[in-house]
Amino acid sequence: MSDAPLPNLAIDPRRLWDTLMDTARFGGTAKGGIRRLTLSDEDRQVRDWFKAACEQLGCTVTVDEVGNMFARRPGRDNSLPPIAMGSHLDTQPTGGKFDGVLGVLAGLEVLRTLHDAGYETTAPLELVNWTNEEGARFAPAMLASGVFAGLFDRAYADAREDRDGKRFGDELERIGYRGPEKAGGHKLAAMFELHIEQGPILEAEGRMVGAVTGVQGARWYEITIAGEAAHTGATPMHLRKNALLGAAALIQAVDGIGQAHLPGVATVGLMEVRPNSRNVVPGEVFLCVDLRHPDDKVLDAMEHALRAALPKVLDPFGLAFEETRIWHSPSVKFDAEMIACVREGAAKAGFESRDIVSGAGHDAVHAARICPTTMIFVPCAGGISHNESESTSPEECAAGAQVLLNAVLAYDARKAEARDA
Amino acid sequence: MSDAPLPNLAIDPRRLWDTLMDTARFGGTAKGGIRRLTLSDEDRQVRDWFKAACEQLGCTVTVDEVGNMFARRPGRDNSLPPIAMGSHLDTQPTGGKFDGVLGVLAGLEVLRTLHDAGYETTAPLELVNWTNEEGARFAPAMLASGVFAGLFDRAYADAREDRDGKRFGDELERIGYRGPEKAGGHKLAAMFELHIEQGPILEAEGRMVGAVTGVQGARWYEITIAGEAAHTGATPMHLRKNALLGAAALIQAVDGIGQAHLPGVATVGLMEVRPNSRNVVPGEVFLCVDLRHPDDKVLDAMEHALRAALPKVLDPFGLAFEETRIWHSPSVKFDAEMIACVREGAAKAGFESRDIVSGAGHDAVHAARICPTTMIFVPCAGGISHNESESTSPEECAAGAQVLLNAVLAYDARKAEARDA
Repeated sequence: MSDAPLPNLAIDPRRLWDTLMDTARFGGTAKGGIRRLTLSDEDRQVRDWFKAACEQLGCTVTVDEVGNMFARRPGRDNSLPPIAMGSHLDTQPTGGKFDGVLGVLAGLEVLRTLHDAGYETTAPLELVNWTNEEGARFAPAMLASGVFAGLFDRAYADAREDRDGKRFGDELERIGYRGPEKAGGHKLAAMFELHIEQGPILEAEGRMVGAVTGVQGARWYEITIAGEAAHTGATPMHLRKNALLGAAALIQAVDGIGQAHLPGVATVGLMEVRPNSRNVVPGEVFLCVDLRHPDDKVLDAMEHALRAALPKVLDPFGLAFEETRIWHSPSVKFDAEMIACVREGAAKAGFESRDIVSGAGHDAVHAARICPTTMIFVPCAGGISHNESESTSPEECAAGAQVLLNAVLAYDARKAEARDA
Repeated sequence: MSDAPLPNLAIDPRRLWDTLMDTARFGGTAKGGIRRLTLSDEDRQVRDWFKAACEQLGCTVTVDEVGNMFARRPGRDNSLPPIAMGSHLDTQPTGGKFDGVLGVLAGLEVLRTLHDAGYETTAPLELVNWTNEEGARFAPAMLASGVFAGLFDRAYADAREDRDGKRFGDELERIGYRGPEKAGGHKLAAMFELHIEQGPILEAEGRMVGAVTGVQGARWYEITIAGEAAHTGATPMHLRKNALLGAAALIQAVDGIGQAHLPGVATVGLMEVRPNSRNVVPGEVFLCVDLRHPDDKVLDAMEHALRAALPKVLDPFGLAFEETRIWHSPSVKFDAEMIACVREGAAKAGFESRDIVSGAGHDAVHAARICPTTMIFVPCAGGISHNESESTSPEECAAGAQVLLNAVLAYDARKAEARDA
């Protein structure tokens, strides 16, 4: 097998697209998006459909204690741990049809293509539907892949509550998806995740495929700037302590930190002006700074630059401040051999891929803690996601599925070759 | 009379302070402020008290069709129109004990002092409680002085609704303060309004009294800046259209317009970031610009500078904008002879006054349309008002009342002298 060329298997673009559109009815919205919150009735419906669709291909579907679903297709050597493909079927409250969904349904298209061709991989394959990636109903995001990877325990997951006070564990049992298997109870040989980019780079450069080399580290800081609220009409310019002027200078300093540490990014996305009245000089501004970079050492330097900028920028205005780092997520580097398989798979499918770093978090970030992992990106129009207008074309979806198939087969072949050698 | 020196009448600081503290029980709050919304039960209570207190001094109290109250103290020549003193007894929802209230109760202290001394002015005097100065319950502010001055008609005032849908006219009748007199139906010879500064200038300069020469013109502009919302992690710096970066530059440009047109002021007090999420590059910012200057021609220049700044500041970021002027209030110049009386009155009381321009609007702005008008300012701690912590000391209150008395007597004497000449 190891010396044989890879087969020229082609996924069925029309079948993939029809499946994407057909399953979008589970939680489909009037504006063409999907509202399929984790562990809702709509989530149960799509899970039931997914299980049946995989079983039709002869797969065995198991569910673990936090609801992660594994559809296993046997290989020639079933003593080997499976090569996994996966993403998530849950969505944002007004989510699109592709974020997460494409990764699972393209994996299904891969299994269907192999099934139709009667092709047998060396290692078994597993298609995974991770529970609660979005975190929109139960925070944090990527919860169940985190339990699978040992980052959280089951009790923590069970105790998460939605805004109505309903618990994750109770809702999991209510929809019948508390499985018997311990999370992380079986080993994965590798995990490929196909996903829409959720950014504008591929579209801007006219590339169909991104070979994802890792995920940026990210850190969030909450900053409160304190001045003095005062009447806009009655307070002369020289007697003001205008917190919003300090915030304006800080917004620019943060942008400058991003520009000075490319390909890093630095952003103020959330900001509240207080008291926020037309005729009151702002006495306080609360804002959140988001810093990201693929290299944690550079991220350290960006953090240092932010902390140096704060007094430098705010002191001249007579403003005080408080700063707290409220969240951090270390950078992740994906598996080099798997990335090579994605590049090869793209080339074989006729696409010139582009190496890309994921700006957002994904289940793959957690999977990377326990097995070799990588991701494949395809474009989404305008970089827009988490929105009912999220749009990836049939050709782009097909490209992603084909590259996923090619990469999985290439990785399976390489590993088999290595074992034979 | 015209050649006689002015009498050395002294107001009673203790009586004034006790009256301020005693009447603060009508709507008094736990934090030491007052909640006395226009035409509420608390407003009725303080009106009833005010009427009785004035009648005790032999005054006749009349009420006009929009609830303005006039307590008239006869003079030697009652064919002359009265010299008025006035302000308002209504407060903000969490207002202080001095804004408006001081002007009315210091006027009462003037009447009490004249009564105790048996002093007779040439012209009659009137102490006015203007209805709905604050505008906190029924917008706009300064409503009933506006009707008195012919700026609004009664039907307009009657139709104003509070947030519960209750109409001004109905509430006026409910508390029994719809009077028979047409608003503006009697002439005023002049109107003096004592008020707290609501700004920090007198305190910063250690002055007890401000002789108010006019009120700034003010204009408000609503501006919406449009960029593109995008994922903070997945959107490289060079592919962003960050509306908040444009807003930051605009905030600075607005501040610069203030600095370049002193003693004008320019402020962004209200701003909303959209969608305002930690991990979304802001796609839109809405903000309000407040420009003020004592000279309307300079205010024109400030407006021109703002409109020139918008494309200059926003175009480099690839941002679009919309700008609308939503409100304007022309500048007011007070009566020179009355201002001179305030300066004299301050000097006679031993205070070095400072000419000052009011940054905020007052009933005096409307009164100035129909009769000679001016104002007297006293300090308030930190320039803070519209707040339960609003603070003016007993000495400052007394200074204001004494200067009000002196100025009214000086003006009455000057006018009598002019008539005699």
